[in-house]
Amino acid sequence: MKPKHHVFVCMNRRPEGHPRGSCQASGSQGTFEAFNTELEKRGMYEQVFVTGTFCMGPCDRGPVAVVYPEGVWYGNVKPEDVSEIFDKHFVDGGEPVERLRIM
Amino acid sequence: MKPKHHVFVCMNRRPEGHPRGSCQASGSQGTFEAFNTELEKRGMYEQVFVTGTFCMGPCDRGPVAVVYPEGVWYGNVKPEDVSEIFDKHFVDGGEPVERLRIM
Repeated sequence: MKPKHHVFVCMNRRPEGHPRGSCQASGSQGTFEAFNTELEKRGMYEQVFVTGTFCMGPCDRGPVAVVYPEGVWYGNVKPEDVSEIFDKHFVDGGEPVERLRIM
Repeated sequence: MKPKHHVFVCMNRRPEGHPRGSCQASGSQGTFEAFNTELEKRGMYEQVFVTGTFCMGPCDRGPVAVVYPEGVWYGNVKPEDVSEIFDKHFVDGGEPVERLRIM
């Protein structure tokens, strides 16, 4: 079954001190875990898929999370932002969290 | 700028002999490289994004590639299948390659 929302969380890691940084350096491990924790807490396994990825490009805006099929790009997503994404975006008739959008 | 097609290629690796196998064990490294080679050959950097991912679920159908926003799931995608995906799916007015679809 296809999910209603498929969230891709960048987990890319670069060596410490790399000029481009990386989403892991910005804390994406915690963000990824927060998505999974929230998914489990709400039992939304059929509606929401969460997938970790390698680099998606906007490394200076990390941690980056992209939601399809709507094509919403979120940046600087901290673990404490994740419940708001579920509350506002992933509910029936929900809308993206504009303050976190980068595209 | 948002891409017209965003291809997510599973690159997940599991230890050799793991009962679920993995897309890397099915050859996804070559599939991922084929997507990037084709992208470069056709200069479609603005239309198509290619991102490697961790596990997306259907490990027994690997290598798995998912294309958004259309939500097309391809399975058993070999490097030699990739140019057909560009030719038929990623052209203007293109349609998914049905023989490779798993969802």
